[in-house]
This record gives sequence, C-alpha cells and structure tokens, in this order.
Amino acid sequence: MTYVRNAWYVAAFAHDVLAQRPSGVRVLNEPIVLWRNTAGELTALEDRCIHRLAPLSLGRCEGERLRCMYHGWLYDRGGRVVEIPGQSRLSSNLGVRSYPVLQRHSWIWIWMGDAAAADEHLIPPIVGMEDVNRDDYVFGYGQFDVDADARLVYENLLDLSHISFLHAETFKMGPIWAQEHPNVTELGRSVRSERWLTSGSQNGSVYGDHLGDSHFCCDCFVPGIVILSNRTYPSGTAASLNGHAPDLNEPAHAGVANHAITPLTDKTARQFYLIAAPRRGEELAYDTTNEVRAFDEDKKMIEAQQRNLDATPGYRFVSAAADRGVVLFDRLTEKLVRAETAA
Amino acid sequence: MTYVRNAWYVAAFAHDVLAQRPSGVRVLNEPIVLWRNTAGELTALEDRCIHRLAPLSLGRCEGERLRCMYHGWLYDRGGRVVEIPGQSRLSSNLGVRSYPVLQRHSWIWIWMGDAAAADEHLIPPIVGMEDVNRDDYVFGYGQFDVDADARLVYENLLDLSHISFLHAETFKMGPIWAQEHPNVTELGRSVRSERWLTSGSQNGSVYGDHLGDSHFCCDCFVPGIVILSNRTYPSGTAASLNGHAPDLNEPAHAGVANHAITPLTDKTARQFYLIAAPRRGEELAYDTTNEVRAFDEDKKMIEAQQRNLDATPGYRFVSAAADRGVVLFDRLTEKLVRAETAA
Amino acid sequence: MTYVRNAWYVAAFAHDVLAQRPSGVRVLNEPIVLWRNTAGELTALEDRCIHRLAPLSLGRCEGERLRCMYHGWLYDRGGRVVEIPGQSRLSSNLGVRSYPVLQRHSWIWIWMGDAAAADEHLIPPIVGMEDVNRDDYVFGYGQFDVDADARLVYENLLDLSHISFLHAETFKMGPIWAQEHPNVTELGRSVRSERWLTSGSQNGSVYGDHLGDSHFCCDCFVPGIVILSNRTYPSGTAASLNGHAPDLNEPAHAGVANHAITPLTDKTARQFYLIAAPRRGEELAYDTTNEVRAFDEDKKMIEAQQRNLDATPGYRFVSAAADRGVVLFDRLTEKLVRAETAA
Repeated sequence: MTYVRNAWYVAAFAHDVLAQRPSGVRVLNEPIVLWRNTAGELTALEDRCIHRLAPLSLGRCEGERLRCMYHGWLYDRGGRVVEIPGQSRLSSNLGVRSYPVLQRHSWIWIWMGDAAAADEHLIPPIVGMEDVNRDDYVFGYGQFDVDADARLVYENLLDLSHISFLHAETFKMGPIWAQEHPNVTELGRSVRSERWLTSGSQNGSVYGDHLGDSHFCCDCFVPGIVILSNRTYPSGTAASLNGHAPDLNEPAHAGVANHAITPLTDKTARQFYLIAAPRRGEELAYDTTNEVRAFDEDKKMIEAQQRNLDATPGYRFVSAAADRGVVLFDRLTEKLVRAETAA
Repeated sequence: MTYVRNAWYVAAFAHDVLAQRPSGVRVLNEPIVLWRNTAGELTALEDRCIHRLAPLSLGRCEGERLRCMYHGWLYDRGGRVVEIPGQSRLSSNLGVRSYPVLQRHSWIWIWMGDAAAADEHLIPPIVGMEDVNRDDYVFGYGQFDVDADARLVYENLLDLSHISFLHAETFKMGPIWAQEHPNVTELGRSVRSERWLTSGSQNGSVYGDHLGDSHFCCDCFVPGIVILSNRTYPSGTAASLNGHAPDLNEPAHAGVANHAITPLTDKTARQFYLIAAPRRGEELAYDTTNEVRAFDEDKKMIEAQQRNLDATPGYRFVSAAADRGVVLFDRLTEKLVRAETAA
Repeated sequence: MTYVRNAWYVAAFAHDVLAQRPSGVRVLNEPIVLWRNTAGELTALEDRCIHRLAPLSLGRCEGERLRCMYHGWLYDRGGRVVEIPGQSRLSSNLGVRSYPVLQRHSWIWIWMGDAAAADEHLIPPIVGMEDVNRDDYVFGYGQFDVDADARLVYENLLDLSHISFLHAETFKMGPIWAQEHPNVTELGRSVRSERWLTSGSQNGSVYGDHLGDSHFCCDCFVPGIVILSNRTYPSGTAASLNGHAPDLNEPAHAGVANHAITPLTDKTARQFYLIAAPRRGEELAYDTTNEVRAFDEDKKMIEAQQRNLDATPGYRFVSAAADRGVVLFDRLTEKLVRAETAA
C-alpha cells in the first residue's frame, strides 16, 4: 500500500468519540486508540500496550490517563507508561507512539507521518456542521466500509462519468453527462474537476422558480478527501463568465458533499460522508436515501473490481480521456510519496 | 491446478442464462461473462472490463453488444471495445478475450484452450432434455458447489466402490458391490468402467415384473464429465453375452445420470447433474431425493478430504485395485496436459 | 509453533467420547481420531486414511476395528490396515500413526511425542470427578476455543495480576491483589506461584463463620496444564507459618480449578476447565456463572492481543515483575523443546 503519510486522515466522526470512552480505529493498517480526557480533549495513541500488545481501546480512561485493562499498565497523553502495578521503578523510555490529532469540521483527523511536520492548514476546507448557520443548512451523514483498496474508492469520485451508467437509475443524469468532460486542474495538494451545466442543457438546474445554470466542482485532496460542491446561478451566468468558473470561495448555493476515504488496511477502506444542503423548510436532516442507494451501487462495483484485480496480478489499468482527474491525482500522490521516501 | 485446457467445460445450465441478462461464472479460475443477444445466441467473454477491471457481468446487454456499467465502455460479441463515452477515437486493438461457447444437451459449454482447436465433436454424449422423447423420459437436475479440488470430486465418481460404504444407508448396495471390480478400459479421451449385475446376485435389478440382469456403465470424459448409465435386460442376458458388454450405443433402458465437474478455482468445484429416467406414469420430474442425500454425503467427505490434504503437503495417495479407473484417468489427463504444454 | 511434544495433552472430556462413536480432534495441528472398542478402551489414531486422506472420524467402529467409510479400508487399534475391499493381498506396512492415549482425572490425554517415552507419571495431579468423594465436592466444567496461540492462553493464567483489572467487576479482587506479587518457583516440569491472603487483608477469606487466612496456589505444568487451588485456614495460620506455604499435599479446603490449554493449531487453542468446590448443601453442580463471564473477558482480550501480535511481526513482549511466572515457564518450555530437538 503506497499512501502519503504526511497528511491528515479522517479517523471518526467527532460525535462518535465520547469523553472517557476509548475508541479503537485503524488507519493505514495501524491500530490506534482515540480518547478524550474529562475536558473533552483528544489523544490518539498506538492501540497496543507495550507489555503484551493488549489493545488500549479495551482500557479505562482515568482523567488525563488511559489504563490498559489487561494487567493495569497506565499511560499518559503522550503515550508514556507512568505506572506498572506492583513495580516501583519505571524505565523512563517505556511507551507507545502518539499521533497528532485534532477535531475539525465535524470529523477527527489524525496525522500519520512525521509529527513535526503536522500542519493544520493542510486540512481540506470541509463544510462541517459547525461551519455554517444551521438555520440555513441541513445535514445528512454516515459512514460505510468497502472491501477494497482505498484508491479504488476515491478514484470512483475522481471520475464522475460513472454517474451516467452505474447510477443511471438513481441520479438519472443521462448519457450526456459522461460524454462531456469537466475541466481538470492540479492545485498543489488537490485535483479539481469542474464544469457548468447550463439551463439549456439536459441536466440544467433550477434557480428559484426558473431553470438556471449550475456549476459543479469536485476537489480531491491528498490523501483521499473529496469535496463536491454544486452552485446554482440565474440562467445565462455561465455564458456571461465565458464558461469560466464562478468565485468558488463563495458559499455553495445548492450544496456540498464531503467525502473522506480512509485506508483501514491494504484492502479495506472506510468512507465517511457529510452532505450539507440548503434548508428548504422545517426538515431535521437532509434526506440521504438516494445517496445511500448510490453508495451501495458503488460498493458492489468496487468490491467486484477489487476481486478481479486480485485475480489479475500486475494488471495495469487502461486509461481514457475521462480518467484525466484520476491520472493527475495518482501522479500527485506518487510525487508526494517519493518526496517522503527520499526525506 | 493442472487441467486440460483444450476441452469443453460446463459453465451453466442452458435455461439459467436468459436473453439480455449477463451472467458471471468462473472456470479454471478465470472470470467469464455469459450472455445472449436478442436472438438468444450465446457469447462468452472475459469478465473484466479492460478499463478498470469492473465485471462485465454487472453490465447491460444492448442487442449485439454488452456495456460495462461502471464507466460505459461498450463491447461487441468478439470482445472488442467499440465505444468509450466521451472519446471519439478508439484504438482498434482494445478488447477482452472471447471464448468458444455453445449450448448442447441442456448445458452451456465453454472451450478454455486454443480457440482454433475447439471441436464440437469433443462434447461427450450427454443425454440432455432435448435429446429424448419427453413422453418416455423424466428428468431431475441441479447443481452444487464443493470446497475441494475438482479432481477429488470426479475421482469420487471414478471409484464407485464407495457406494457400499459412504452411501450404505442411501443406496443399500451392500458390501459385494465394492468387492467385485468393474472392467476398466481407456477409450481415447475417456475411461470406461462397466459391469453386469445379474438376477442371481445380491444387487440384481428388476426387468418388467421379473428379476433381470442389469449392465452398469460409467464413462468419465476429459476434463471431468461423467455419464453413468444403467441398462436392464431379461434374466440370462449377461450369461448369453459371456459377460461382455451389451451394445452401449442403444439407449439405456433404465436411466442415465450425467455429471459435469467444473473447477471454479484451485479448491472449489461445481457439480452439475442431470438424471434421465424412464417415465413410469404421469410424474412431472424424476425424484432426486435419494441422489441429493448421496451428494450431501459426498460433499461432506470430499471437503474433509481436502482439509486433510491441505494439512499434509506433498502427500501421495496410496492406490488399490479399486483405483484402476482413477489411475487411468489421471494418467490420461497428465498425458493431455503434457501434450498441450509441449505445443 | 514451538511446543513440547513429549508431554500429555488433553484432547477431550472422557464422557464426550462414547463407545463405538469415533470422534475427531486436533492437537498440535495434527488431526486425530479418538474411539473406544466395545469394552470402552481408548485408541487414538491419525485421522486420515492412507488411501485418499478421508477422515477416519467419519468412519464406523466395528468392535476392535475402525473402518474408513469412504472406500471401506479397515484399521486395527495399532493403526494397521487389515482389510481393503476387493483386494486379497495386503502389504504389511500399511497404516497410520497411533498415539499413546489414556483416560485419567475426567479427561482423555494424548502423548504427542516419542511413544517409548510416554510416562503416566507425567500427568499432572488434576482433581477429576472420580478423584474425590462426590458427597464432599461438586463440579462445574466445560470447554471453549480461543482464536489465539495457546501460549497466550496459559500465560493469562500464569500472571493472575490481571484479575484486578480484566476481571475487576467479575471477581472484585481490588487493586491490592495486583500490587502484591506471589512467590514463584520452578519445580521440574512446572512453575508454582503461591501467596497468602490473610484475614487482615482486603481479600481475606471466610473460614467457617469467621474471617480466615487463605492460601492461593497456581501450578502450571508443561505443556499448559494449570491447577489453581485455594485452601482456607483459621485466622493467624499464615503468621504461625511465617508466611511459608501450608502442606500442599493435603486436599484443598476451598476448591480447585483445573485448566488444560491444548493448541489445536498455531492460532487456535481449546481450554478445558474442571472446577471442584466443597459441597455446601444439596446442589447438583458448582455454579460457574462467574467463571464463564471471566472466560469471556479473557477470550475477548486474548483474541485482540493475537490480532495485534499478527499486525506486529517480530514483536518481543516487555516484561515486568508480575511476569516472573510467565518468564520462568517460557524458559522451562524452551529448555525442554531444545532437549527434544537435540535428541
């Protein structure tokens, strides 16, 4: 598995890690325990007691400390062993790895590489539940696991031409969507694919009471965080901008779907999704029925793809025009991995 | 796994592959999609789109063509890519392997080796549902999977002495059956085991209202297709033929059981069975209750045998007189495999 | 897997192997069939017919003999083939391995090493159901499998400091238990850990109507047989013995828990337990509710430990003072394995 390590990976929804309740997760094949002290502050440690590798996620939070509940070894927030029952002297260098961890945009993020390089600014501009006025937006969210390399999962989102085929019944986008390619550009640590759907096209959107132009943008950030946004404008906007993108720093008028794909192991990935949609009335949440149906379609296809890949060692995918985003993102990932390996 | 490739393997019952509904099967570890055009004609292609290995069996039949439903690549019946959405120029050499395939004797047969060598005459003389007058015969049929090397499954049928033990309660043949050996001969691409059970013996058969002589014949064809036939005659027939076989080109008077053992992977096999029995009255089908019970006994034993084999690397079976059919067939298979490898 | 072979392993409860009913077990990765002749005498043979590796445990007992029910080969109690159906001459050296086996202390024991070295005196002094007066004692017993190396399972019993943590709610022993270490000594083929809990301590016991002193002893025998005994005495006994152990040859006044940990495969173990407790009244059996809850806690922890171990190749445990019993026993096992390998 070749993944960028100097990057933030989503480990959990923030609301799923409760105070004083350790929670075991896995990222890049590494077992990690997440826990909060009484003040709610997060710690992420290697999830195996150095004594006999019992998981600390089966342990007990004791204020600022976490106790392994097999034989009682006690760890501080830095991962250092501070108590061994029945033993008065402790070597000062006993401990487990601790990971930079923080909570942002409704998710918990872990930095898997060199702790000194951890930089909060590298967290992608997710639209989380605390980031918008809840009077204006409703959210739908969830997570699911896919028995496949995470790469196959985020590549699904990097080539959205599949919506015309795999999700033909679910999203009813028609074949035109797949025949017209988005503009694809590389932007530092992400690849952007964007396009206009104008009021004259088959897939035009509604703006107020009329048909409008809608601008669709997909930003895929290293290591596999995807932000899909959809902005709607009065009819004619696309033409007045000569087909150029609108100001993407403005909030989306029609919704944002955030996806984080986390490699659990070489062949299992967890997909977290968080969809923000403009509030239409008094609804409590965004209705994800259609998206969940599409995720099921994706999961079934990607797992079958992984099985075929396993049965075809050394196979190299054949790429076409629609794969430009995939190709650029793979190249970006490889470049970053090479830089890390060299360092 | 060492199997003959220049041979017809049964992939499915003909009635299980519907028009315009692609069906994924596996033969010799290879994923294969079977489908029919609107006229019902069969095609067998490699079941992985060259683009990103998505299975074509999750695809959509479009008349003479099959579309991958991940990103919409379209294949013709020869396996050639004839459309990539959003791309105007296509390289002419893009495509997947296509396999010779045909429907015969109620089954669908795939040729796994050199397509130029595919020869319909190598299909064994199965008695399928379309091959007899349905006023005279009824059928029972089905299929099941065994978690074992296909070789262990067809060898079960090549040494029927096990009927006296493994199926002691089910077929009640008694120990004599195992103590008397059949005549075993090699016939080109098959091994024949045949014997008389006379009216005087413990296992004599009924002919009309009286005890009769019955002739039992087992033909095992490469790569693992077994035809068991049972012919009944008036008492004294065996003696009048000096124990020689009757004319085996004549239809069986008492029934034929056809079995096809297809290796799915190195350690899973699918057994297709199709039993033709003379009609006795108005019954709709042959009652397979007893056979199904015997298949369960076989499956349990063979899977346990495979587990023991896995735990005993390099073990070479000890053979006895009753294994003559097994030994000849293994030798025949090895000879054909060597010839293929040399070619 | 590195285990002592010249040792008795528990294969089953004696009452679970019925006369004339072959029973398949697995010890040290070897498939073994246990069976009794009509007189109830035990035989243990390799559980794979030499013919085609069918398991003899699917066979049929015929008095002094066991028949493979695939093709009918017949074995005597020494493992020799004495009949092959349809074959008059038999090579005299055909057969499977036979293992020394005996029934003792409610269990069936198999010797996995050199048969000439099998010595009944090496069976540990288990307190079985036939060893005590059933008017005085009641028993509770059972078995369960753990998906882990057997070593992790018996080490759980060699370091009982875990009772204060893993079983904090189940046994309510408090943290003092873990902070005070037992006396640990090596005794030939076992390691003993023993300690007093006096009436003045937090974990003192009851003796008659009063608080008493209790002596707790854990003997762990090669290859993984653990006898936990608890003896209660009048208050002051520990002091009068200057903290030395009481006479451990006397029967335990408060109970014995016998455990046998048998490696089935490299990463699965079977734990047999047999608890003898002084009868209090008319109860039919010892109530194991608490123990079963503790076993579940152990199993969950040990299986998680094994998964972490699998994900951490080459990891060497860090040991502390409480691990003295574990360290001595591992050293003893390694010494015996080295001696066997050299021999």
